[in-house]
This record gives sequence, structure tokens and C-alpha cells, in this order.
Amino acid sequence: MKVNVSKKILSANEEYALQNRHLLAKQKKLCLNMISSPGSGKTTILIRTINELKGQIKIGVIEGDVQTDLDAEKIRATHAPVIQIETKGACHLSAAQVKAALSSLPISNLDLIFIENVGNLVCPSAFELGENSKIAVLSVAEGDDKAAKYPAIFARAKALLINKIDLLEAGAQVDFCLERVKADARKLNKGIEIFAISAKTGEGMSSWYDWLKKEVRNLRGD
Amino acid sequence: MKVNVSKKILSANEEYALQNRHLLAKQKKLCLNMISSPGSGKTTILIRTINELKGQIKIGVIEGDVQTDLDAEKIRATHAPVIQIETKGACHLSAAQVKAALSSLPISNLDLIFIENVGNLVCPSAFELGENSKIAVLSVAEGDDKAAKYPAIFARAKALLINKIDLLEAGAQVDFCLERVKADARKLNKGIEIFAISAKTGEGMSSWYDWLKKEVRNLRGD
Repeated sequence: MKVNVSKKILSANEEYALQNRHLLAKQKKLCLNMISSPGSGKTTILIRTINELKGQIKIGVIEGDVQTDLDAEKIRATHAPVIQIETKGACHLSAAQVKAALSSLPISNLDLIFIENVGNLVCPSAFELGENSKIAVLSVAEGDDKAAKYPAIFARAKALLINKIDLLEAGAQVDFCLERVKADARKLNKGIEIFAISAKTGEGMSSWYDWLKKEVRNLRGD
Repeated sequence: MKVNVSKKILSANEEYALQNRHLLAKQKKLCLNMISSPGSGKTTILIRTINELKGQIKIGVIEGDVQTDLDAEKIRATHAPVIQIETKGACHLSAAQVKAALSSLPISNLDLIFIENVGNLVCPSAFELGENSKIAVLSVAEGDDKAAKYPAIFARAKALLINKIDLLEAGAQVDFCLERVKADARKLNKGIEIFAISAKTGEGMSSWYDWLKKEVRNLRGD
């Protein structure tokens, strides 16, 4: 007997991710899932991006944390709509949590929804949330061997933000070879977009903003 | 009918952890499980500690990585015995993996076994490996809100190493309040030992070495 199993059986998480994907596609909203270790600067990147793109791109944020709403509070100060998810110990956001958060965001008024995942370079990359793309963030203080050592997120991300490049200035004590990380990331993911930035000083951020505007335009088919 | 369940049912991981604990206790070997985000400096701390304590404490290392043996190679250069575990994507070490590694280490010739866990501030703290104590490592570049945001490891660690304090020197671009982290960690864990160090320059490391020597002595009952 031959059984053709043509329909892929989805996990509960994948089911919710698919629902999120349909909702976002229907409304033509861009959704980016930011993944990094704790302390790479995701929140600071989001705050600067929201403020600099005011009047150009309407941004909402789904903020994931193991505990506390410290980051959501910071983002709230930009007046962007933000929904906090506290995972209470869990090491990644789930698509079900994101679905609930999406239902509380004023999506129709937004162009772009950032999901700030739990700080963790390993687990979140394995869980689809229904996002359009994953964005990896790495701070130069973490060292230039991280793409080789934690390949999953670098292989899956559409873009990589290498943050805190202000720490590489003359006289700084951080050893970090930008070219090594770029080469390692491109070995895993030929088309990955790479932006070397400082969310603190603003250096390199304009290329990131241009890329975001292009992604929003492409999705809308403008 | 009344059923007394007096024996706790252990998970497979807990069973292996218990076996490791018995093995280590029988031989009176200290085992410390180092847990942090990627790039906090665990490997650099281990290398400096092994080199500085040569002739005083005999150290072996179990090195956990998602992928690559880059860290094990670096530690091998100290001539300390090192066993590499590649988790192939898994976000934490398991007690079964550590049991296998322990059987390959020359334990009877060692005083202290460090386990360098996978770089991840969330998941490894939930898995007992049979160690005597967990050691949390946090680099100042990660920010001073991490004990509040990722409480599990700070609540469970016997000691906290706050690394890369050289980045806090005059003129540095890193904002980090040592007192905030110490207060947050002690709120979670009253007795936690805290060492502010730079594994790169050696600053603050002598208190850490003294603490390690005391822990080894206490375990042996010297």
C-alpha cells in the first residue's frame, strides 16, 4: 500500500505562525523579528529607528522579555505603540504569544511591526512567529567568532546589524574584526545584508533606514 | 487507598546529574558550571585562571559549544585537559553529555573541573549537570539591567563574575552601573559572591583565585 502524505503536518507553533503570516500579508504589513544575545542593543536600535523614521514609517513593537517591562517602558517613551510579552522564564517568544499581541496592536495604522525577541542567540531562531524576516543583531563586544559558533540565526536572518561599532574607535579596548564576521555570515547566508552601526552615535544607521524603507515599499508593491 | 510517594521521580537529566554528583563527591573534586551569554568572556576567564593557578590548582575543562571547537582549541594551548562537546544546535549542555565527558577526563589528577556551558543566559540555568555550583558571568558591555531581566541564573549562581571592567575606564563609551547589578543580584540571591574583573588585564582576578582556592580546600576538608 502506498500512502501519499501531501499535506505537511504543522506543529501548534507553526499553525499560529501561519495565521500571523496570513494576517500580516492581508494587510501588507512588514514584520521583522529581532534576535540577539542579551545586551546587544536591540532596544536602543529600535528607539533610534522609531525616532528617526517618524513621519516616514509608522512603527509598532512587540516586546519580549523573560521578566520585567523595562524595555517596553523605554520604547513607550517614543510614543510608538508597544505590547509587552513577559515569557516568565521561557527562552523565546511563541507564535501564539505574538498572535495575541498582534490583536492588541493598531495594525491598520502601522507600516512596520518589530518583534524584539527574548535575548538569546540560540533558541528564538528555531521558532517561526509569522514574521517576514529575521534580523540578527551582534554587538562588537561579543567577539568576532559568533557567526561561526552560533550559525543558526546567521544562516536564517535577512539582515545582520553589527552594533556598538563606536567601541572600535582608536584607543578602544575591543578586538573585533568586522571582515571576519562578514565573511563567516556570508558563508552561511550568501545574500545576507550587513550593516555596521552604532545605535548610540547614529553611525551607519542611515543605510539601515534606507533598507527598511525599501522593504516596506517592496511589500506594499509601491 | 493511600499511596505514599516518598521517592522523587527524577527526569533522565536529573538521574545523570545525580550520577555525576556522586562521582565528583566520591573523588572530592570541585566542579563549576560557567553560564553566560555568548561573548561575555568565559573562555578568556578560564585561560587566565588556568595559567595563573598553574602549580596551585590542577584544572580540567569541559567545553560546550553549539558548533565549532574554537574555544577548546584556545584552552588546549594552556595544556590543561579539555573535552569538547558540540551540541549541534542544542541551547544547553545535558548531564548525560557531561557524564561522557567526565569519563574521558583524567579526573583523579585534577582538583577542579570547569564546565563552560553553551553561551545562553536563559536555558542552561534550568539543567543540573551534577556540578557543585553555577557561576554566572556578565560583561559590562551587556548592560546593567541583566540581573533584573534574566533573573534565573543570578538567583542560582554561587558567584557572579562581572567581566570586561576595563571598558569602564575613563573615556570609555560603556555606561554600566556596577552597584545596580550588585544590588539586583543580591536581591535575588543574598549570599552571591560578586567579583568585578577584567580577564584581559587581570584586574580584580586575584580575589576570584582566592575564592577558588578556598572552595577547593573546603570541599577537600583541608
